Amino acid sequence: MRPPHTSIVANLPAATPFVGPETLERRTNRQIELRLGANESPFGPSPLAIEAVKRVAECTQNYCDPEGYLVRQELSRQLAVPMECIVLGAGIDELLALCCRLFVEPGDVVATTLGSYPTFEYGASGIGATFSRTRYLAEAPDLEALIEAATKESAKILYLANPDNPSGAWHHADAIQWLVSRLPSDCVLLLDEAYFEFAPEAAPIDPDDPRVIRLRTFSKAHGMAGLRIAYVVAHEDHVQAINKIRFHFGVNSIAQAGALASLNDPYHVPWVVAQSAIGRLEIDEFVSHLGLRPLPSHTNFVAVDVGSKARAESILTSLLQEGVFIRKPGLPPLDGCIRITIGRPEQRERFAEVFERVLRAQ
Amino acid sequence: MRPPHTSIVANLPAATPFVGPETLERRTNRQIELRLGANESPFGPSPLAIEAVKRVAECTQNYCDPEGYLVRQELSRQLAVPMECIVLGAGIDELLALCCRLFVEPGDVVATTLGSYPTFEYGASGIGATFSRTRYLAEAPDLEALIEAATKESAKILYLANPDNPSGAWHHADAIQWLVSRLPSDCVLLLDEAYFEFAPEAAPIDPDDPRVIRLRTFSKAHGMAGLRIAYVVAHEDHVQAINKIRFHFGVNSIAQAGALASLNDPYHVPWVVAQSAIGRLEIDEFVSHLGLRPLPSHTNFVAVDVGSKARAESILTSLLQEGVFIRKPGLPPLDGCIRITIGRPEQRERFAEVFERVLRAQ
Repeated sequence: MRPPHTSIVANLPAATPFVGPETLERRTNRQIELRLGANESPFGPSPLAIEAVKRVAECTQNYCDPEGYLVRQELSRQLAVPMECIVLGAGIDELLALCCRLFVEPGDVVATTLGSYPTFEYGASGIGATFSRTRYLAEAPDLEALIEAATKESAKILYLANPDNPSGAWHHADAIQWLVSRLPSDCVLLLDEAYFEFAPEAAPIDPDDPRVIRLRTFSKAHGMAGLRIAYVVAHEDHVQAINKIRFHFGVNSIAQAGALASLNDPYHVPWVVAQSAIGRLEIDEFVSHLGLRPLPSHTNFVAVDVGSKARAESILTSLLQEGVFIRKPGLPPLDGCIRITIGRPEQRERFAEVFERVLRAQ
Repeated sequence: MRPPHTSIVANLPAATPFVGPETLERRTNRQIELRLGANESPFGPSPLAIEAVKRVAECTQNYCDPEGYLVRQELSRQLAVPMECIVLGAGIDELLALCCRLFVEPGDVVATTLGSYPTFEYGASGIGATFSRTRYLAEAPDLEALIEAATKESAKILYLANPDNPSGAWHHADAIQWLVSRLPSDCVLLLDEAYFEFAPEAAPIDPDDPRVIRLRTFSKAHGMAGLRIAYVVAHEDHVQAINKIRFHFGVNSIAQAGALASLNDPYHVPWVVAQSAIGRLEIDEFVSHLGLRPLPSHTNFVAVDVGSKARAESILTSLLQEGVFIRKPGLPPLDGCIRITIGRPEQRERFAEVFERVLRAQ
C-alpha cells in the first residue's frame, strides 16, 4: 500500500510553471538556436563574475556560507539598508514560496493579476492558497482593482511585479506608494522587482515598513539565471521569520561568489541596461514596420501584439520549428501577444530574419 | 501594523540547523585553517567535474534544464531505475523538506533518532510536525525502537540515515529490509543515504515499493557540497507528487554539469572512498593511541568518544582557537564524542599535531 500524500499535494494539478527550452528541444528533436523566451540576459554575466565563478569551481567540495554574509554586506552598503533586512534565496521562485509560507494558511486568499508570474501562483497553490485575480487594465496591472480585491477578499498577500512580466509595463514610485498606503491591514505587498534595473527608477526602499517585501534577483540584468541567487529586502521581523524556514545552504558558493563579483563591477549592469534599451527601440521599430504593435516595455523583453491568440500561438510554433524559442502570455487581454527577449545585435538580426519569414508564411 | 505570520512560523524557534565555519571565523576573528567539521570531501570533486563547471561558467545567464534530464538519464542507467523514479533537488535538505510537505499535515508525528540530522528536524518542524525520538542503542540507530515508536504514534514518516550521522554506524541491507517490512501502513521510510558510497554496500533499490524514499547526494563522495545537488529515488507516484511542489529551476546549471561529469568519471569516487578508508584507519589508530575510543565508522568521518560532554565541548573550543573546525553530536549517548571529518594525509598530520597539543593542555 502506498503511504498517502497530504490532501493539499494530492489535489494539486500535475503542472509545472514553465516548460524549459531543453524540453522543447527533446520534444522537437531539434536544437534551439535562439533562446529568446525566458528573458535570460543575452549579454551574459560580468567578466568579473565569470572569473570569480571559475575560481570557486576549484573548491566545490565546501558548503557555502549559510548566512551569505559577504553578498548581504555589499547589498547593505549599496542599498543603504541594514544587513538584518536582507536575506538571500536560490532565486525569486524560492523566496516567493517562503513568503507564502510566512503569511498564508491553507484556504487564505492571495491577490494577483490575471496572468502574472506563474511561479508565484505555483508556490502559493502548493501551500493551499486560493486566488483573487484581477484583469489587466490598458495592458498593465490594475492597481485600484488589486486593492479592491485584496480588501474585499481579506487577502494575506498582494503580489505585484514592477516592472510587470509579461506586459513590460512599469508603475511609477508614486503609484506604488499609493498602493502601499491602501493595503488592507493584515495584507503584505510582495513587490517582485526582478526587472527593476531596466526601469527608469525604483520605488524607494523603507525597511522599517513591514507592509512591503521586495524581491530582487541576479537572474536578469546580472546575467546569472543559471546560478540561482536572489534576495529579499524587508522589515527585520520578516527576515528573521524567513530565516526560520529557509534552506540555509541553498544559495550555493558559486552563486555567492558570482553575485559578489557582479555587485563590485560598476560597469556591467549599466552596460546591459543601455544595450537592452537600444535593442528595445530596434525591436519596436522592426515590429511596427511589420504592422504589429509593441507594448511599451521597461524590461529586457518586448511583448508584441500580433492580433489574436491563434496567430500568436501559430507564430510560436513556426518559430520553434526554425529553432527560435520565445514565449507568450497565456491569458487575456495579453494572449494575443508574443514576448521576445531582447537579444544581442546579431541575435536580433537573426530573429528579424526568421520572424519576417514566419510572418509572411502565415 | 505588521501583517501577521502564520502560527506555525511564529511559533518556531529562531534556530538554524548548523552554524557555518564562516560564521565562526567572523565570531572569533580568526581564519579557519582546517575545515574538518562538515564532512566536506577533502579530496574535492572529480577533475572532470571542475572542467565541466568552468565550461558552464561562461553561460551562467541561461536557466538550467528544469527537468535535470541528463543527470537523471545517467543516474537511471547507473542505478537501473526508470528516470520517472528519480527527481533532483538542491541538496538532501531541500528534498527532505519536500518529502515532509508530501506526507505530513500539521500535528502529524515523524519518527526519528534522538540526535539525527538537524536539517530533517528543521524541515519537519517548519511545517508543523511533531516528533517521536528514539535513543541510540549501542551508538547506532535502534531499528526496533524506531518501528515501535512509529507504530505507537502513527508516524507518517520514519527518518533513518544509513550510514548514520553523527555516529558513523551502518546497518546491513537485511536490517533495512526488516525495517521496511515492519513499517506501519501509512508510514514512509525516508532513507537518507548521503554517505552510502563509503559503506560496504547499499540496500537494493526497488522503485516499485512505495514505502521507501531514498535520498542521495553529490555533496559527500562526489565532493560537491558547494554546488547543491542531490536526488530522490522512489516510486513514480511519489516523484510525480514531488514534481508538483518542487522548485523546478532550483538545481542550477553548474551543479547539473558538475554532477553529470562526476557520474561519468569511474575513477574519482572509488578513489575518494579508498583514501577515506585509509584515513579512517589512521585516525582510529591515532586516537586509540591517545587513549580515546573511535566509534566504528562507515562514512568519511569518525566520531571519537572523549569521555564526557564537557571535555568534548572544551576540545572543540580549544581546536577552534587553533584554527581547526570540527563538530560534535549534541545529545546523549553520543554527546561525549567529537566528530572529525577524514582529511587528506597532510590535513590529518596537521590535525594530529594540534589535537595532541590541545588534549595535553586540557
